[in-house]
Amino acid sequence: MYRKKDDTMSQNIYDDPKFFDGYARLPRSQLGLDGAPEWPALRAMLPDLAGAAVADLGCGYGWFCRYAREAGAAEVLGIELSEKMLARARELTADAGIRYLQGDLERLSLPEQSLDLVYSSLTLHYLPELGPLLATVHRALKPGGWLVFSTEHPIHTCPSRQQWVADDDGRRSWAVNGYQAEGRRLSNWLADGVVKYHRTLGTTLNALIAAGFALRHVDEWGPGPELIAARPELAEEAERPMLVLVSAQKAAR
Amino acid sequence: MYRKKDDTMSQNIYDDPKFFDGYARLPRSQLGLDGAPEWPALRAMLPDLAGAAVADLGCGYGWFCRYAREAGAAEVLGIELSEKMLARARELTADAGIRYLQGDLERLSLPEQSLDLVYSSLTLHYLPELGPLLATVHRALKPGGWLVFSTEHPIHTCPSRQQWVADDDGRRSWAVNGYQAEGRRLSNWLADGVVKYHRTLGTTLNALIAAGFALRHVDEWGPGPELIAARPELAEEAERPMLVLVSAQKAAR
Repeated sequence: MYRKKDDTMSQNIYDDPKFFDGYARLPRSQLGLDGAPEWPALRAMLPDLAGAAVADLGCGYGWFCRYAREAGAAEVLGIELSEKMLARARELTADAGIRYLQGDLERLSLPEQSLDLVYSSLTLHYLPELGPLLATVHRALKPGGWLVFSTEHPIHTCPSRQQWVADDDGRRSWAVNGYQAEGRRLSNWLADGVVKYHRTLGTTLNALIAAGFALRHVDEWGPGPELIAARPELAEEAERPMLVLVSAQKAAR
Repeated sequence: MYRKKDDTMSQNIYDDPKFFDGYARLPRSQLGLDGAPEWPALRAMLPDLAGAAVADLGCGYGWFCRYAREAGAAEVLGIELSEKMLARARELTADAGIRYLQGDLERLSLPEQSLDLVYSSLTLHYLPELGPLLATVHRALKPGGWLVFSTEHPIHTCPSRQQWVADDDGRRSWAVNGYQAEGRRLSNWLADGVVKYHRTLGTTLNALIAAGFALRHVDEWGPGPELIAARPELAEEAERPMLVLVSAQKAAR
């Protein structure tokens, strides 16, 4: 089982060789944003990026950082815990408007009122607490600035064991239990002992509200009929949401 | 199976004798608000009621209408589709500050900017669409006014058949399927063929945002350890949420 180096550090599973190799083979790693079926929905939640200052928390290979620059962002900061991911991001990037920094989101600091958009894809479920990061992000946003993120849906994270079961009609169903028991979950996605944190959707939304954000859109993402026709392997994602996409805005003042 | 009188009317299952008799025996019917385990959480989401003008959409026996008056509300309007429920509400009420009206929430009209609080307990899941009602409620609220409601949680409404199943570890789990397939669901709660409408939580929250509300709190209600110790039959409600409680506010201007 992969373990944290110490209890105060975020688990850096992406630097585990087995995990990294598996991750590198995923469509979303090889094809970038277009390999992620939820990307069109997440993109539709973004503000206009022309001239914007952007940060990507958990930037991985830097796909979104490069997209933001192509969409007109003036400067983009990619923050990532994994040195391996950052090395690959730097290999893939030739753009002085993008800076990559190694950093742990549990102890992130960002300049005040400096950003128009903070973006984060499938990263926040690795954090045991959201409150400190959301306070940092809120301070770092300019008035009217946006936070747009995706995270694993609590229906997906909650069970003690993630699995499909047959219901009494033989219909394939997702076995939900432990929904109210927030906290640490171990899963064996790509490597053994990957640590994620289960939070109810209410807890995530209330943390955003408490940090001062106005909620703008909540999308418990699932594939529509056209996407399922094109990629039948995604049909199960319509049975229960695996992801939730959220946009929130700092007051304009 | 109980059927609507016509397709343009909300199903009035509460006037079905079998349903009404079953409902009359529930703790929440016999004991009022204190018979509903989620009531303390819902009460904590209410604004100060001193001097307030309040409407309760789907007021049932009028328990909340009477509570609001005891908490200082100046005037309370209880709206209910079921004549049987209203008759019982009137029997239980001796207070000129409370008016009861028979009405269908699908064609509700309310005076503009007249209310400080609109409340609704376990009623909105009977409506095929939320948008028209939320627009009416937003118009009817004074600036800074509140909408506080509970509704069935989509984890509870979504499956084609509501049931617990054993997962591969033998753990009792709630079988989730059809989450993205919004719309009509038949359940056999108290009577056969009770019609409810499944909406994702995102759809409900986005409808509130689209109507002009600021989201203030989202509670996917479940019992805590003390409540489970006192009422062990509620333990399963911690495995998956059955209810969601929401508070939202009209801008103060």
